[in-house]
Amino acid sequence: MTQFGSPEDTARRDPSPAGPPPVPRVDGVRLLEVLERLGEIGADPGGGVTRLGLGPLEQQARGWLAGVGRSAGLVPRTDPAGNLFLRLPWPATGPVLLIGSHVDTVVQGGRLDGAYGVVAAIEVLRVLRAAGVRLPFDPVAVAFANEEGALVQLPFFGSRAVCGQLADMTGATDRSGRGAHTYLAEHGGDPGRLAEAAWPEGSIAAYLELHIEQGPVLERAGIPIGVVEGIVGRTIVDIEVLGQAQHAGTTPMEARHDALVAAAELVLGVRRIAAVDGVCTTATVGFLRAAPNVTNTVPGTARLTAEVRDIDPDRLAAGEAAVRAVGAEVERRTGCRVRCTLSSGSAPVATDPALRRAIAEAADALGLARLALPSGAGHDAQIVASVAPIGMIFVPSTGGISHAPAEDTPPEALVRGADVLLRTVLRLAATAGGDPGLGEGRVS
Amino acid sequence: MTQFGSPEDTARRDPSPAGPPPVPRVDGVRLLEVLERLGEIGADPGGGVTRLGLGPLEQQARGWLAGVGRSAGLVPRTDPAGNLFLRLPWPATGPVLLIGSHVDTVVQGGRLDGAYGVVAAIEVLRVLRAAGVRLPFDPVAVAFANEEGALVQLPFFGSRAVCGQLADMTGATDRSGRGAHTYLAEHGGDPGRLAEAAWPEGSIAAYLELHIEQGPVLERAGIPIGVVEGIVGRTIVDIEVLGQAQHAGTTPMEARHDALVAAAELVLGVRRIAAVDGVCTTATVGFLRAAPNVTNTVPGTARLTAEVRDIDPDRLAAGEAAVRAVGAEVERRTGCRVRCTLSSGSAPVATDPALRRAIAEAADALGLARLALPSGAGHDAQIVASVAPIGMIFVPSTGGISHAPAEDTPPEALVRGADVLLRTVLRLAATAGGDPGLGEGRVS
Repeated sequence: MTQFGSPEDTARRDPSPAGPPPVPRVDGVRLLEVLERLGEIGADPGGGVTRLGLGPLEQQARGWLAGVGRSAGLVPRTDPAGNLFLRLPWPATGPVLLIGSHVDTVVQGGRLDGAYGVVAAIEVLRVLRAAGVRLPFDPVAVAFANEEGALVQLPFFGSRAVCGQLADMTGATDRSGRGAHTYLAEHGGDPGRLAEAAWPEGSIAAYLELHIEQGPVLERAGIPIGVVEGIVGRTIVDIEVLGQAQHAGTTPMEARHDALVAAAELVLGVRRIAAVDGVCTTATVGFLRAAPNVTNTVPGTARLTAEVRDIDPDRLAAGEAAVRAVGAEVERRTGCRVRCTLSSGSAPVATDPALRRAIAEAADALGLARLALPSGAGHDAQIVASVAPIGMIFVPSTGGISHAPAEDTPPEALVRGADVLLRTVLRLAATAGGDPGLGEGRVS
Repeated sequence: MTQFGSPEDTARRDPSPAGPPPVPRVDGVRLLEVLERLGEIGADPGGGVTRLGLGPLEQQARGWLAGVGRSAGLVPRTDPAGNLFLRLPWPATGPVLLIGSHVDTVVQGGRLDGAYGVVAAIEVLRVLRAAGVRLPFDPVAVAFANEEGALVQLPFFGSRAVCGQLADMTGATDRSGRGAHTYLAEHGGDPGRLAEAAWPEGSIAAYLELHIEQGPVLERAGIPIGVVEGIVGRTIVDIEVLGQAQHAGTTPMEARHDALVAAAELVLGVRRIAAVDGVCTTATVGFLRAAPNVTNTVPGTARLTAEVRDIDPDRLAAGEAAVRAVGAEVERRTGCRVRCTLSSGSAPVATDPALRRAIAEAADALGLARLALPSGAGHDAQIVASVAPIGMIFVPSTGGISHAPAEDTPPEALVRGADVLLRTVLRLAATAGGDPGLGEGRVS
């Protein structure tokens, strides 16, 4: 069960009786209640949430949130890509400050990944509306469609559509070959008008995303707010090991070319790149398959993936080079052939300095300790970064767990994060003044 | 293409013009031709042979060999378990000397494993019949059913039936759950009379099996004949690794409990048991499966099998203990939980000293170098060992390869092995004299 915030959380105000007018705060009880009820859509019987992108449950979540917004006086709109937007009910006062995340999940994921950022963005708009705050830009909450790509395998689907990066959707299907178009047509999108989901150049002044960290850094440091420096780049190297399948009983140890032994050396060597040598931040073998993979045969071949991540492009490149060096070394030592092939990857994406500063100042104003850290996971923000400056706020993940039923963050930490988001929006307004470009955030 | 033996091989005789009557030799051309034609039954289009035990192709092979034997004046018989026997066409002169192997293969196996021993046994009987040699025992060629267990997963099916060890067949099915009974009924066996396949106690005086080595030892040593000391025992330990599935991008290296890293340490540690520490002859991880086994998740669990083999029961036990010690050490070092469970195994089986001596003397008489070595693979002989003394002869395997299309042995080496088998039978007759117990072979 989720604990709601205490009654005192509701409509808190900074205690400054003799100073300027009090700065608004989010309604913690309301925030947590919306989050709780959203988590019931796609809740798995055994715990966790499965609400796959472009599927019926994502549509249901979107519809329910649109209703929440509408009854709070916001104006919902769903675009042809299945993105949900909520605006304030008065005419735009400038370009758009987009604030949000996504509401789809992985299979048996948690209730916070994505959902928290969307619910907090809606809460921020509710506070702004109730307080009648007019800003020099138009704050819009967004729930991007299919960020995870867990069903239809094109992650960041909605943010790509908004950024005009959905030109080729031919490969986007589920595992049975059913296409994105079919899902869109059935579940509230409009595949024929998909191009209309792209926003005009310059129409997004900035993008803010509040998210759980999905890692253990903040919790371990005991710090409530993460100011995200950027989203790490990621390089995936496919590794193929060619040994020789041999009889496990009749082949003496010294006559073997055991592909699994070579693969094991690779697993440990790849780990060392990050864990011991510190070449890049992370280096992981997540996938390994040996063949024939039966008890009584010396494995003849193996396939692995090595994935390296870093926020620095040079360190990312060094990580890839180190993987190839490990491959060459294992080939030399084991006599198995080792082939390394660059599979795919993404470049690191930096957050905007002005937005980072606004987030930091917001945390400081609220008396919350903060830590600058990279995001090790991918987010819609990295797509939006191609068309607008981005900023990201993290809150701690309990035990660093994410993409799993046990994914959690204490309720008070969730409320704190939403307060930082609200305060960041207000700071940006103060910085920007009448400037529709959000000051530095606009040009960096 | 298989090369046949040269014409001079046919009906060779030892060049002893002034001595005792010449000792018969096998007909090499005939041996190789029968082997070649048998290899066409179940031949795979891309090379290799797939002739699965208890299936239609094993039945076809049995039927064809029965015809070969019948037209050569031998008397074929198939028992309810699908075993084929061929006898000389005169009344038994004593207890049975069983000689043979099996004709089923693994999926995409070779044309020699099993088939060679059966074809050579039939050739030996043809020579004995043609020469009119009367022996103090009744030589019977056998093709045991389903030695491999590649289709219906009960290996040594036929030899178990002969030895009265097929009491519980309930678990013997193919991967789709189709039972051994169904296969037997469809392909020439008689499931209702299966118990009749068991031979009376004491009716088998001894068992001789000629086989390819399936390993590289003889070829590397340049020695044509292996005198098998015994069949190694085998212990299989299932290993389960419990780490924690974590996000590969957000989880720092030092915060991980990577089950695949622990599994890699196990693979290398198990190898060291045999390859470096020499605790037992072989130690192999042939099977490894990590979960969730996707690129961007630190693996949370892994399963492996560690298999150790040795001819010495003490060394076999030491091998198992060493596997458990590796597991404990990896658990200590990685923080992942490692559980080792004894899965299955078989005890080492010794060959009979008198039969080993007869084989050695036969090789010596033919001027062929010989090497005493264990069999690293399992054979029907290890089942028959429970009811009778056993002897095994090996010939070299090219490149040590077996259970694969490339399985091969030079034709002249195949003929030499069959000659050693024939000469061994004749030596046993000389040793046994009128003794139906084959002398020492009987009592060891």
